[in-house]
Amino acid sequence: MADKIPYKTYLTEEEMPTQWYNVRADMKQKPAPLLNPGTGKPMTAEELSGVFCEELVKQELDNDTPYIDIPREIQDFYRMYRPSPLVRAYCLEKALDTPAKIYYKFEGNNTSGSHKLNSAIAQAYYAKKQGLKGVTTETGAGQWGTALSMACAYLGLDCKVYMVKVSYEQKPFRREVMRTYGAEVTPSPSDTTEVGRKILAEHPGTTGSLGCAISEAVEVAVSTEGYRYVLGSVLNQVLLHQSIIGLETHAAFKKIGVKPDVIIGCAGGGSNLGGLIAPFMGEKLRGEADYRIIAVEPASCPSFTRGKYAYDFCDTGKVCPLAKMYTLGSGFIPSANHAGGLRYHGMSSTLSELYDQKLMEAVSVEQTSVFAAAQQFARVEGILPAPESSHAIRVAINEALRCKQTGEEETILFGLTGTGYFDMVAYQKFNDGTMTDYIPTDEELEKSFATLPKIG
Amino acid sequence: MADKIPYKTYLTEEEMPTQWYNVRADMKQKPAPLLNPGTGKPMTAEELSGVFCEELVKQELDNDTPYIDIPREIQDFYRMYRPSPLVRAYCLEKALDTPAKIYYKFEGNNTSGSHKLNSAIAQAYYAKKQGLKGVTTETGAGQWGTALSMACAYLGLDCKVYMVKVSYEQKPFRREVMRTYGAEVTPSPSDTTEVGRKILAEHPGTTGSLGCAISEAVEVAVSTEGYRYVLGSVLNQVLLHQSIIGLETHAAFKKIGVKPDVIIGCAGGGSNLGGLIAPFMGEKLRGEADYRIIAVEPASCPSFTRGKYAYDFCDTGKVCPLAKMYTLGSGFIPSANHAGGLRYHGMSSTLSELYDQKLMEAVSVEQTSVFAAAQQFARVEGILPAPESSHAIRVAINEALRCKQTGEEETILFGLTGTGYFDMVAYQKFNDGTMTDYIPTDEELEKSFATLPKIG
Repeated sequence: MADKIPYKTYLTEEEMPTQWYNVRADMKQKPAPLLNPGTGKPMTAEELSGVFCEELVKQELDNDTPYIDIPREIQDFYRMYRPSPLVRAYCLEKALDTPAKIYYKFEGNNTSGSHKLNSAIAQAYYAKKQGLKGVTTETGAGQWGTALSMACAYLGLDCKVYMVKVSYEQKPFRREVMRTYGAEVTPSPSDTTEVGRKILAEHPGTTGSLGCAISEAVEVAVSTEGYRYVLGSVLNQVLLHQSIIGLETHAAFKKIGVKPDVIIGCAGGGSNLGGLIAPFMGEKLRGEADYRIIAVEPASCPSFTRGKYAYDFCDTGKVCPLAKMYTLGSGFIPSANHAGGLRYHGMSSTLSELYDQKLMEAVSVEQTSVFAAAQQFARVEGILPAPESSHAIRVAINEALRCKQTGEEETILFGLTGTGYFDMVAYQKFNDGTMTDYIPTDEELEKSFATLPKIG
Repeated sequence: MADKIPYKTYLTEEEMPTQWYNVRADMKQKPAPLLNPGTGKPMTAEELSGVFCEELVKQELDNDTPYIDIPREIQDFYRMYRPSPLVRAYCLEKALDTPAKIYYKFEGNNTSGSHKLNSAIAQAYYAKKQGLKGVTTETGAGQWGTALSMACAYLGLDCKVYMVKVSYEQKPFRREVMRTYGAEVTPSPSDTTEVGRKILAEHPGTTGSLGCAISEAVEVAVSTEGYRYVLGSVLNQVLLHQSIIGLETHAAFKKIGVKPDVIIGCAGGGSNLGGLIAPFMGEKLRGEADYRIIAVEPASCPSFTRGKYAYDFCDTGKVCPLAKMYTLGSGFIPSANHAGGLRYHGMSSTLSELYDQKLMEAVSVEQTSVFAAAQQFARVEGILPAPESSHAIRVAINEALRCKQTGEEETILFGLTGTGYFDMVAYQKFNDGTMTDYIPTDEELEKSFATLPKIG
């Protein structure tokens, strides 16, 4: 252990993980399989390979192999922007006057602005290796679309992004970043797909949704020669790739002789949280260590804390397999004032199963309190956080203040998934004092639960 | 020397410099002093201390002390976002198929998005230590204003930023970042100052300029109790603080057993270039080593390559001391299509003197070629560069291509000063193919040279 813990702990490039960790291998009760919506039976590798690359299908279905080699080419790409630092938040601790020790793993130091690049390069790599021409995807706020554009530019792969129309219009700069990386960006719903035309006919004025953009991207992938679909969250394969976050964190803690007590991550589809907690959850599953693990979600999109654990559609057009997950129903749309991201109606099947087994907790927080935490953090730690990440900051601060009251010297780790440079419209609302909160009523949730399929 | 040079070389926190390096101490012919525009005599410390903090005045006038201690509090702040990585651009080398070895020092991994934070925290610290209430400054594109806002938020100091009106309106997100850090941002020219009201009366439709915003910020500083003015470039003190860039780079090269042949930096007012080259120029001045040092500036604002070495006004309102520098005349305004930053009419007195002594070279490049280099770099190195920084990228690529032709295995270092996340309007023009170039005619330059004061 160092005399003084440094502000930032970096692994050397030699110390960087060379394998991803698959938490499913250590789960006794595995996550529920994807189902074919037609037959109600588990999706086979063959069925999935029309949508996803072959190697990714293998990873998606592999519940048994604990460690999977990271191909050399992906390791090389990781070295361009990784290892990411494990930061000791000395200034935040001082500002809070807490005996708690606060650490964060910062994933925002790359142009995509978030952890999404970790899986984007993996998915693009396998597509390239399979000899494909390109990939399609959807993006909401644009972090995932940017990450995928970067990975495709690096590998020389075509990239078609369906961007939720409201974001396409309100975030022209995100779109330009993607275009700078050579991606083709289409506002969704669009008239370039059958499902898009159908949605436009039914809802002429719609500004789009993630679920709708997914349907369009999948349709293009399965109907275009040499293309496959890739997704930035929710899937098992994504959590596998994102385990690099947790593995680096685990190794960095070991290097400085520290063990966290509480691990906190924001949760939309679950990619960051699943990645951050992976090796720690593994220890917990194997009975080697115990940690409090907390998922944080928006009160306006509370899939863990108020959702149902059930099979649901992953997309609006219902072209995707069904997944068992904590969900608000695929018909759920967050209220119009929602500004903090994490707006997907469901949650990773793996995390849903772990949560159902009470191996982790979940809390929901309101957005004005999230932005207040973001501002406090920015002013003392010098990083303007993404609204998504700020959900974790909010709860980390709450936990540190609890320690202040009790005098406990707990070690708190949270995932700082990204930066908020493209989220200034939301920050402006907060700065102007015009940001409001919204918690859906029970009646509203009952209405969206009614969109759940009648299965299982 | 390592078996293989890593992608990124970081110093440990113990290895970080604890002193800044003052290149003026090693210059036989010192930079010309600032002059009082009224008397034509060198500004005294007393005269300067109405505008600047006392400690900063000392640093501004100190041509003799080679190393100046970095106060502990500033070192602590540096540890929040430094050391910055020295990156081996393996992917760019491969894309160019060059035998040259390319390195860049990346200063963009902090929320201000650039190296400006290195001097902002120093200037804010000395203001705080002097018991001041706040500081004023100007900002153009917004990197400096953001950096100063961050430093002031950290230290609990008021921060008033005069932002060039056209940027204030076209870059609302930069403004919001500053507001998130608690700064008061005023579009310039404004009716809050005498000089602002005068300029507005003379040029009712003006969208402002850096020189005008400087005048306003200085007026507020000297006329408000407990305030001083701070500046993000040009001054000797700024180059001193920015020497942290070069010192880290020098130490990191030593760590991996490498010595650069060519050092390239973009140059507007000179803060980044002066900081990057400081210890290397020191070796050159002391006859210990030799390096090719290249300043890169926009062809549309060519102060080194086409300017006069003369005393000039630093601001439009002519309230600041006169500085001897390579200048286009304080009346010079880059053409309306100019999008790449680096638009100040003059250049650091220290760099001007070094350039005049032929200790460094300068080249100018046109903006479409700069953005082409930026895009190429972004696609292979994964970082979307600031337009300013991309001037250095352009010339680094040119030098690497020269090595490809000659077969020379030169080691090229350039300064990657920042990221372009708030410059997407310019990128969009490039992506759309609507960006154009402009080189001022000799007649235009003669006209702006006519605004030079008749002195010395």
